[in-house]
Amino acid sequence: MNIRLIIKNLSIVVCIEALCMLFPFLIALLYGQDDARAFLFSALITLCVGLLMLRTRVKTNNFYTRDGFAVVALGWVLVSVFGSLPFLISGAIPSPVDAFFETVSGFSTTGATILENVEVMPYGILFWRSFIHWMGGMGVLLLTVAILPSAGASFYHVMKAESPGPGPEKLVPKIGQTAKILYSIYIVLTALLVILLLTAGMPLYDALVHAFGTAGTGGFSIKNLSIGAYGSVFIDIIITVFMFLFGINFTLYYHMLKGNIKSFYKDEEFRFYIGLILASIIAITLDLVLNGLYSVGEGLRYSAFQVNSIISTTGYATADFNLWPVFSKFVLVMLMFIGPCAGSTGGSMKCIRYLLLFKIIKRELSKIMHPRAVHTVKLTGKTIDETTLWETMAYFFIYIFIFVTSSLIVTLDGKDLVSSVTATAAAIGNIGPGLGLVGPMGNFSDFSSLSKIVLSFCMIAGRLEFLPILILFSPSAWKKASI
Amino acid sequence: MNIRLIIKNLSIVVCIEALCMLFPFLIALLYGQDDARAFLFSALITLCVGLLMLRTRVKTNNFYTRDGFAVVALGWVLVSVFGSLPFLISGAIPSPVDAFFETVSGFSTTGATILENVEVMPYGILFWRSFIHWMGGMGVLLLTVAILPSAGASFYHVMKAESPGPGPEKLVPKIGQTAKILYSIYIVLTALLVILLLTAGMPLYDALVHAFGTAGTGGFSIKNLSIGAYGSVFIDIIITVFMFLFGINFTLYYHMLKGNIKSFYKDEEFRFYIGLILASIIAITLDLVLNGLYSVGEGLRYSAFQVNSIISTTGYATADFNLWPVFSKFVLVMLMFIGPCAGSTGGSMKCIRYLLLFKIIKRELSKIMHPRAVHTVKLTGKTIDETTLWETMAYFFIYIFIFVTSSLIVTLDGKDLVSSVTATAAAIGNIGPGLGLVGPMGNFSDFSSLSKIVLSFCMIAGRLEFLPILILFSPSAWKKASI
Repeated sequence: MNIRLIIKNLSIVVCIEALCMLFPFLIALLYGQDDARAFLFSALITLCVGLLMLRTRVKTNNFYTRDGFAVVALGWVLVSVFGSLPFLISGAIPSPVDAFFETVSGFSTTGATILENVEVMPYGILFWRSFIHWMGGMGVLLLTVAILPSAGASFYHVMKAESPGPGPEKLVPKIGQTAKILYSIYIVLTALLVILLLTAGMPLYDALVHAFGTAGTGGFSIKNLSIGAYGSVFIDIIITVFMFLFGINFTLYYHMLKGNIKSFYKDEEFRFYIGLILASIIAITLDLVLNGLYSVGEGLRYSAFQVNSIISTTGYATADFNLWPVFSKFVLVMLMFIGPCAGSTGGSMKCIRYLLLFKIIKRELSKIMHPRAVHTVKLTGKTIDETTLWETMAYFFIYIFIFVTSSLIVTLDGKDLVSSVTATAAAIGNIGPGLGLVGPMGNFSDFSSLSKIVLSFCMIAGRLEFLPILILFSPSAWKKASI
Repeated sequence: MNIRLIIKNLSIVVCIEALCMLFPFLIALLYGQDDARAFLFSALITLCVGLLMLRTRVKTNNFYTRDGFAVVALGWVLVSVFGSLPFLISGAIPSPVDAFFETVSGFSTTGATILENVEVMPYGILFWRSFIHWMGGMGVLLLTVAILPSAGASFYHVMKAESPGPGPEKLVPKIGQTAKILYSIYIVLTALLVILLLTAGMPLYDALVHAFGTAGTGGFSIKNLSIGAYGSVFIDIIITVFMFLFGINFTLYYHMLKGNIKSFYKDEEFRFYIGLILASIIAITLDLVLNGLYSVGEGLRYSAFQVNSIISTTGYATADFNLWPVFSKFVLVMLMFIGPCAGSTGGSMKCIRYLLLFKIIKRELSKIMHPRAVHTVKLTGKTIDETTLWETMAYFFIYIFIFVTSSLIVTLDGKDLVSSVTATAAAIGNIGPGLGLVGPMGNFSDFSSLSKIVLSFCMIAGRLEFLPILILFSPSAWKKASI
């Protein structure tokens, strides 16, 4: 690996993070709270390290897929380490493990918190927590690519490693331009959400914070009762709709802007996503109403919110689904393992991979029935090559393998089975809440440091879809390292 | 599909089942109990239907893979229907759904029971319950092939569909001969177990019944406390060892008889199996001892028994692992999804498939690191072709897909999440006990009829490794049906 070039590329990411810390600094100043100083110090430390890294002398410009993967993996670890400085310096989260967990949870758009009472936290700290959701949603490195004018073709590897789903589409030939388009759509949608939340009566600060959390499909709230605290039907509906919207492949928005609205209907993944959401809402509403928990209207309201929250991997709540009947809970756990569309800001496995899976199974059955026919897998009219299919298969198993081994370590804490397993599922799928102790009204503070480190690993690995992290741990990647 | 030939083939299976009912008939006579008449009636009904089916006039002898699959799938449903007659006619299990569940659980070597108190059941009934474990373990159709002199080459499809694991090895060119060898090894090992249990002080009837349950990796006991009821270290050790032995690929025993003892050590799957068992025993023993539940000796004894019971998918118990710490429980649940070696009498996914999986993941990572190299997957020195790899992938997903959708239906009963999910896992993996309500000291009587039917489907589908059942439900298989 070209370590010098990797460090050079990372230096810019670190510097941009330092600049981003000025937003919460201003918020803290505005509210006249003590955490302003913490942000100033954090920004200075981060900037100094970033500038030091920038001085690295690059010997060769060779940059392969593995280097792109390394930039992304190391980049995410670095921004999480520096991002936890404000929590530590302000004393809001005194334990380094907890601060790291919270920051990783932010950047990875998980939204799992170790804070038992968020409402006593300073404004700047809560703003930072949600702002990193927003940065992490579309991609920390993609942000760099979007800002920098010099991002070359080699950055396709970085984009490939950071963007969710198999094979991201380059909207335009230039990678920097693609990043700019994606971020523009992201900013416009976020701004629209802020305006709608304001009209629904949410204060500006709350609207900003929750818009960041929704756009990044994160889920950190500034209320202990999450969105439920506002008790407003309008706010519920707005956030339900936007959680749904941020779970859609951004490429479709781009095509829509180009006048091709049909692309939504044509896209098999989008139809799968919307079908799954509708089926889940109906099933859960029926379960809730038949069990006498809610009226039909309330049932629809709460099930629509929770279903969209879980499938988009946001993790906001308006009801404690931990207390729902076991069928509804199981549907939500299923959705935790599916997630939204590829190319969205959401986590988990993504609808497209399940579509490919069903098509692969169908193909295998068809091979037995018609052994001499030619069998290809098509999606939205395009033939999917065997390499992508193998990568998809491998992805599923790596996901399940890391989920199971991490759950095993978490069970060492002696928490009940459902809490341990859903905590891990919520971390690896970047969702946030699980069931039991980590339900929507619970938090992750009770877990041991070992579990918190394992869950932090799950959050980053899940967000980056494993390969960058696995390559980082692969000895043969380092064998070819040049310093 | 060649329906006439399928019926003709099935007629023989049904007749053989009728003859097998004479064993419990004799046992019932011996103990002078009422159920003798039930067995006589059942045998007569079964024989009459079998003879009627035998009269089918076959038009063409074309017999393809799909026909082999249909014979196996329909054969298993038929023997389960007829096998439930003694339970119904004797009145031991009055509900048809319960009787079918119990019979399917027997043939599929699951060992999940709906009986709340087995100790009050007549001897003949309990004998039959365990005897069908033994028949199902090596294969109901393989038994037919072993007995019939006329089994042609076309029966390879039947063997392929019924025997567990990807691509069964034909020991000798003739399929009938292969079946005879496998059944001979099976009978010798079972007889050895009976003798050992007798020397350990178990009564003859008990020894026979438990030998059938161990050999078939079934798990039905005649004691409410399962093997724990005997409270004997010797019996525990004997059954632990034999559960382990029946989880090994029978091909290795054949090679051993041919003088090639090294084949055990050379076989990658066997090493994986034994490694996994040792690691699990150590991990659980440590967990049990450190939690102060047992001394080291007791911990080893109970963990070795339970680990071998679950991984071999037998399901006998000497301890209520439902009360163990969550880490130990999680290890056992993991083993439920792994299972023993292919070509054994056990269920679940089989070690070999996990080995192939890890090799596929390794290959995908290696493709990224060295894009231009040639990547093949090898097992025990042999290159595995892509078709087998795709089938393995498809198998995993069908397993998970049927497990998840069945669990979803089972949650409609409103039982807790752990009970619902592990009940389904125990059914599809042919294990028997799960956790919670269906723990080793619990039973399946509380579930609704819908759940029992779904779980019965899981047991047969899991035992036959899905493809035969899926082909049966595939419309295109019937399109080509000739009557």
